[in-house]
Amino acid sequence: MSNKYVYLFSEGNGTMRNLLGGKGANLAEMTNLGLPVPQGFTVTTEACTKYYEDGEAINKAIEDEIMQYIDKLESLVGKKFGDEQNPLLVSVRSGSRASMPGMMDTILNLGLNERVVEVMAAKSGNPRWAYDCYRRFIQMYSDVVMGVGKSYFEELIDEMKEAKGVTNDLELTADCLKELAHEFKDQYKKSIGADFPDDAKVQLMGAIKAVFQSWNNPRAVSYRRMYDIPGDWGTAVNVQEMVFGNLGDTSGTGVAFTRNPATGEKKLFGEFLMNAQGEDVVAGIRTPNNIDQLRDVMPEAYDAFVKICTKLEAHYRDMQDMEFTIEDKKLFMLQTRNGKRTAAAALKIACDLVDEGAISDKEAVLMIDAKSLDALLHPTFEAAALKAATPIGVGLAASPGAATGMVAFTAEEAKKIADGGGKSILVRLETTPEDIEGMAAAQGILTARGGMTSHAAVVARQMGTCCVAGCGAMKINEKAETFELGGKTLKAGDWISLDGTTGNIYGEAIKTTEATIGGEFGRIMGWADKYRKLKVRTNADTPHDSRAAIGFGAEGIGLTRTEHMFFEADRIPAIREMICAETVEQREKALEKLEPMQQGDFEGIYEAMESRPVTIRFLDPPLHEFLPTKEEDIAALAKDTGKTVADIKAIITSLHEFNPMMGHRGCRLAVTYPEIAVMQTKAVIKAAVKVQKAHPEWTITPEIMIPLVGEVKEFTFLKTIVKETADAIIKDSGIDIKYLVGTMIEIPRACLTADDIAKEAEFFSFGTNDLTQMTFGFSRDDAGKFLDEYYQKQIFESDPFARVDQVGVGKLMKMAVELGKKARPEIKLGICGEHGGDPSSVEFCHNIGLAYVSCSPFRVPIARLAAAQAALKD
Amino acid sequence: MSNKYVYLFSEGNGTMRNLLGGKGANLAEMTNLGLPVPQGFTVTTEACTKYYEDGEAINKAIEDEIMQYIDKLESLVGKKFGDEQNPLLVSVRSGSRASMPGMMDTILNLGLNERVVEVMAAKSGNPRWAYDCYRRFIQMYSDVVMGVGKSYFEELIDEMKEAKGVTNDLELTADCLKELAHEFKDQYKKSIGADFPDDAKVQLMGAIKAVFQSWNNPRAVSYRRMYDIPGDWGTAVNVQEMVFGNLGDTSGTGVAFTRNPATGEKKLFGEFLMNAQGEDVVAGIRTPNNIDQLRDVMPEAYDAFVKICTKLEAHYRDMQDMEFTIEDKKLFMLQTRNGKRTAAAALKIACDLVDEGAISDKEAVLMIDAKSLDALLHPTFEAAALKAATPIGVGLAASPGAATGMVAFTAEEAKKIADGGGKSILVRLETTPEDIEGMAAAQGILTARGGMTSHAAVVARQMGTCCVAGCGAMKINEKAETFELGGKTLKAGDWISLDGTTGNIYGEAIKTTEATIGGEFGRIMGWADKYRKLKVRTNADTPHDSRAAIGFGAEGIGLTRTEHMFFEADRIPAIREMICAETVEQREKALEKLEPMQQGDFEGIYEAMESRPVTIRFLDPPLHEFLPTKEEDIAALAKDTGKTVADIKAIITSLHEFNPMMGHRGCRLAVTYPEIAVMQTKAVIKAAVKVQKAHPEWTITPEIMIPLVGEVKEFTFLKTIVKETADAIIKDSGIDIKYLVGTMIEIPRACLTADDIAKEAEFFSFGTNDLTQMTFGFSRDDAGKFLDEYYQKQIFESDPFARVDQVGVGKLMKMAVELGKKARPEIKLGICGEHGGDPSSVEFCHNIGLAYVSCSPFRVPIARLAAAQAALKD
Repeated sequence: MSNKYVYLFSEGNGTMRNLLGGKGANLAEMTNLGLPVPQGFTVTTEACTKYYEDGEAINKAIEDEIMQYIDKLESLVGKKFGDEQNPLLVSVRSGSRASMPGMMDTILNLGLNERVVEVMAAKSGNPRWAYDCYRRFIQMYSDVVMGVGKSYFEELIDEMKEAKGVTNDLELTADCLKELAHEFKDQYKKSIGADFPDDAKVQLMGAIKAVFQSWNNPRAVSYRRMYDIPGDWGTAVNVQEMVFGNLGDTSGTGVAFTRNPATGEKKLFGEFLMNAQGEDVVAGIRTPNNIDQLRDVMPEAYDAFVKICTKLEAHYRDMQDMEFTIEDKKLFMLQTRNGKRTAAAALKIACDLVDEGAISDKEAVLMIDAKSLDALLHPTFEAAALKAATPIGVGLAASPGAATGMVAFTAEEAKKIADGGGKSILVRLETTPEDIEGMAAAQGILTARGGMTSHAAVVARQMGTCCVAGCGAMKINEKAETFELGGKTLKAGDWISLDGTTGNIYGEAIKTTEATIGGEFGRIMGWADKYRKLKVRTNADTPHDSRAAIGFGAEGIGLTRTEHMFFEADRIPAIREMICAETVEQREKALEKLEPMQQGDFEGIYEAMESRPVTIRFLDPPLHEFLPTKEEDIAALAKDTGKTVADIKAIITSLHEFNPMMGHRGCRLAVTYPEIAVMQTKAVIKAAVKVQKAHPEWTITPEIMIPLVGEVKEFTFLKTIVKETADAIIKDSGIDIKYLVGTMIEIPRACLTADDIAKEAEFFSFGTNDLTQMTFGFSRDDAGKFLDEYYQKQIFESDPFARVDQVGVGKLMKMAVELGKKARPEIKLGICGEHGGDPSSVEFCHNIGLAYVSCSPFRVPIARLAAAQAALKD
Repeated sequence: MSNKYVYLFSEGNGTMRNLLGGKGANLAEMTNLGLPVPQGFTVTTEACTKYYEDGEAINKAIEDEIMQYIDKLESLVGKKFGDEQNPLLVSVRSGSRASMPGMMDTILNLGLNERVVEVMAAKSGNPRWAYDCYRRFIQMYSDVVMGVGKSYFEELIDEMKEAKGVTNDLELTADCLKELAHEFKDQYKKSIGADFPDDAKVQLMGAIKAVFQSWNNPRAVSYRRMYDIPGDWGTAVNVQEMVFGNLGDTSGTGVAFTRNPATGEKKLFGEFLMNAQGEDVVAGIRTPNNIDQLRDVMPEAYDAFVKICTKLEAHYRDMQDMEFTIEDKKLFMLQTRNGKRTAAAALKIACDLVDEGAISDKEAVLMIDAKSLDALLHPTFEAAALKAATPIGVGLAASPGAATGMVAFTAEEAKKIADGGGKSILVRLETTPEDIEGMAAAQGILTARGGMTSHAAVVARQMGTCCVAGCGAMKINEKAETFELGGKTLKAGDWISLDGTTGNIYGEAIKTTEATIGGEFGRIMGWADKYRKLKVRTNADTPHDSRAAIGFGAEGIGLTRTEHMFFEADRIPAIREMICAETVEQREKALEKLEPMQQGDFEGIYEAMESRPVTIRFLDPPLHEFLPTKEEDIAALAKDTGKTVADIKAIITSLHEFNPMMGHRGCRLAVTYPEIAVMQTKAVIKAAVKVQKAHPEWTITPEIMIPLVGEVKEFTFLKTIVKETADAIIKDSGIDIKYLVGTMIEIPRACLTADDIAKEAEFFSFGTNDLTQMTFGFSRDDAGKFLDEYYQKQIFESDPFARVDQVGVGKLMKMAVELGKKARPEIKLGICGEHGGDPSSVEFCHNIGLAYVSCSPFRVPIARLAAAQAALKD
């Protein structure tokens, strides 16, 4: 860190974004490019960091430096703070490295007081303008620096307009505005208990402090979490000489994009207002004009602006988002930045820029926000229809997309509606494995309980079905087949809509449109595939999901959860019989029933995947998850197994666990009941033999994955069983099938002893969901109770379940990679936790040297792009 | 590993225990000392390891080497395997590094067959002896090598005795024994499907293989787990020329200790039988004679034996446990080893040896098995009374000691009995915090549900109260106030007894004796304190426990669990009010009620501990643990808080957690409700101020411990609150109080980021209970379902909750120590998990450089001794 905390715009440049923030760096860059930028200086992000280090205070040295730069600015522009001849007014704006709504934005006209405003009114001969500036300044300063609510001032303006019988702000006279300014100052005094500051330097320091302070306001903190922005970056502050768009009919202000940010079309896109200042354009008080009209109103300014647009886009090699002000016909540039855009626009702009020869395909790949692709891969609401609708409640955005359908309170009902060609939303207190077919039949799933890893959420994400989970405000009356939410009572068959991306619930049908993947999407993916090093696999349990994933570019399956297959109606009786078995023989008999079904599943998946690798995870969840909960199902199971209802209930009780996540599951099941591993091995290998024989042109190579290993001897014990079983079948088959036996690394101890495990395991696949839970010591479902407080108190900056915690969990992963490679240099390394579809986590996986990431089918394109970006950045 | 797998006794010595096993090394040592030891050789432990490496087979090279040593033995003794003139018979015995019951013990008379036995009968003129040897050999070989059950042979002997009308084995004639031998061989053939082997070398290889195999039988595996013996040590095999105690009335065999193993008294202690072989002495078929009587029967042999005893004890500098055989008046030594002894005897023997000048005080300290001290610290059953009693059931040995009392089904009842001066055993389905006073009043606690960390188990261990938990076979009928177990129905007021060391439950009163700590105990502890480097603290929540711990030598408190105080009847309403609060103000109001009570607790503890350090852990368990479960308590709480029963039930439901161990607990509570930390800080510091003022001669230095930290920002957030609160109180107090703020390291991520945490935390205390759970990914309560399988399948060798898993958990601990010291070289490091009282874990803590261990009061002496042993070994 240097001792210099302030830079004139002419001292900086576009590469100094970390120090000057995005806005400051671009103002410097534009200044260097010779564009018409009002003079000014930037207080650096390091000054902000120092402010927090010093216990939220700006130290004397930095304050002195700021004052020196005020002197410099005064000399440069020939004006002086508080001067009666030539008073300097400035704007103060925040500007961090990444553009970040939620922070304090802008204060205009700083430097005004009762005396200066009179000078300005007199000298300009435009007292209306002077007093308009003054009342704006008081209003903004009170609001953003001192936290006096905006509404007070808006009320005063409304009262004034009413009193004067006018409707438009522009109709208020100079006297009105002067009166308003005084009323504003009175309101300030009433709220704050002190006079409004007259000293321009006091005003300035207050404004700078407010910008620093706004870095940590709740909205900014929550925005940073959403976009992975570190809390220690800090924000810079830009202090700039004012230019005035409110100087009369030859002045104005506007914002514009060099291309259309919604569609990507190459055409200037923006709005402006005559005789207005900054925030008026977006405030919606007056309706702004389309930027094209500026050509007619002020052709010279328009031409100058178009030229600048072209120059800036060429210079930055990306679509620009700009702010400008015209002061008495003269154009000034107040900001430029790479414009935010929709995912569709991003793809089009990137392809167009490549075609225009402006950027390379590598740059195009790096230009797309990988996360944003998600929006292109799910159905969405039609924008107009959505605008007209009001949500009746909100839950957790558990699985993205948009869905509309008729309320169904049972899986059967949802299936019936689907069978009749209709659309349904399955509404449940919480879903259970027994609901699986109804979930597959429904357009969307809505639950009152459960978090982001509840059964509903996990299964829905896997299926790519929209899901809103854990809407606690919803009151379900299952008997009456109704639910209450947001004051409405909805019954079975009523239409509702879910937004799985925001969590919003609507009490009405809203039209949706299916996702389409246009040509640009394919081009970008092609370029991404050219540059990425990581393979991208998918997590898929069915041939249907497998085929969908191949459509999205998956190169294999990184995780097939065999247990999901057990929940289907024709299998659950056999698995329950297996659980209720009292002897090995009984258990084997039940498993014999499951084996052909499971073999059939694997055949379907191999057929779908052809020669691509398929990783099959052996049974993982605790057995109690398979047991019935409803009385009638318990009775049925008793009948099937020849036991009493009391016997079955006793079995259910005996399988109860205090902490199911840390209980009898994963490989612990197969250690206790090796016959389960035998059955699963038989199904995996027999299926491989059959498909291989039917398709000699393919190479079927199953990868058997033993879950939840924490000690190499667990793995060795099961590997021995798997190998004995598999080798015997292969020998009998008369053909050669290669297969791997590896493990999921999802327990801290597995990372700590990865060298021992790698001596036996042929591959590692990081199960970062569980690894994150165990490393942090909290379960994802329970953490919901306190994580919000953690974000608010800035203890956590991002959700460790969404983004790999590189400091803790990542350290264990790195350790496992290093130890594993040392013991077995050719070991295959991958990840199959949900992090496999998160761009920053994908980058981390690339950096620590994994061979592949695996994610749900709908995230495959995101992972492909993120992998390419990681490789290009590397 | 060398290529030599066999050693003559004359080739070895006493230091070669790892290679030759204890028995082999001592036979070699006795041979070198010139004692009368029959010749023989030892097959090494490395041969055993190789046997398992080679897939449970003795390879050709080792077999050849054994045969060469048979040749050598034949030359040495001038006899030959299977020879008709001078046949060689041998014994085959196992012998691992550590003496280990559960493995195959002995086969005598190997080398016999139909021809050889006839030669022996003819040559010796003692056919009864010859056929006695033969039938014994067939019997032992069939049983221990081939697994033909003993009972078959015993039945045949019984039938023979009945047929002959005799009662004593010695009355069976040569013919009878010959007939028996043939019947035995028939039985062998029937069971095995093959003839009994006649070839001595085949017999020998079979016996050696059986010894190797017995290393991994379930009893041996479970013994190793109990005594921390690694599974890869393997066992040696000793092959030794036979000498015969059954050669007639001038022969015999016996076992003896140089001192009394029960009391330590310095006096030969043992038994012998005339005309008998090996196992007859312990088998109980005939009643053996006291060793003193040997003086009268065979004075020369007795004198020779006494001389050898003296020589051996002086040589080994420890009490010896020996086996001998007298063959026709000539004494042979078959084994010597350091004798097992009771804890009381161990203390006396060690002190006596020091006083006799035989060993140093360091050696005395190293000589005591630290774990065994446990038996001296709790009440025990009177041996005779216990012998007469039969258990009616068995549960988990959750807290050691012995207890007798009247069955009480409620805490109130237990308290009433205690108030009346009576003794009770509290019998519950499972205990809840509401039972706390009843648990304190009862002599023992018996529960039907819950594992080794259930509420009952944890609290009982803390209190030092005997507890048997999770006796699933017990059926409690709470309404009828009865329970059924082992076919008995017991009602309230009936007498029962519990053995908390074995888990046995008795349906009757058994007399107990209180623990007394004799003078030797104190001397040993004094020496231990002289040499240990680790400080020993205690985990104590009350002044009573604190004083008890000081009595046992505790030097401070390493863990005060503040929540245990909340469960008392006068506090639980306030804590429940706190939990039900809907606003910060309501919560603060409830906390205000708790503050003076909590302050009082701390005052009591400081008073008890005087200047010793006291570590106070802030509130840890999830809040739902404090909420009522009984309908009447819920109703009472509703009344107290002015809410409806439905409201209270809704609160209880809202606090439900899927995995409570990984939920909203530890520092997460205080992050969410900082007012709890404020209240606890006030209580800690105000109490310190008060006690410090009352006792200026002491220095009160509270150590505030923030639990469950996984991220330094959690710690910093709370430390700031603690410091602000504490410093204000200290400033007001006018005196100087120093205090520390540190954290419990119990989450993997805390170890991984210990450098960051150490920048803020003044001490670390390892909470190895939770750390073990999170590192392995299983909860202690749920792991009971599969850990037995893990032991049986040799996946785990020891219970990671009893003994620190040095490979996994220990690696994290080492990492935390290194990172922590790097960031703060003066950081105070300790452990307060239950491992703090386990000797091998204490040694590990010494080795990684901790400053102290903390354990329950009753384990303090164990920890002191273990710490000294670790320091002396270091």
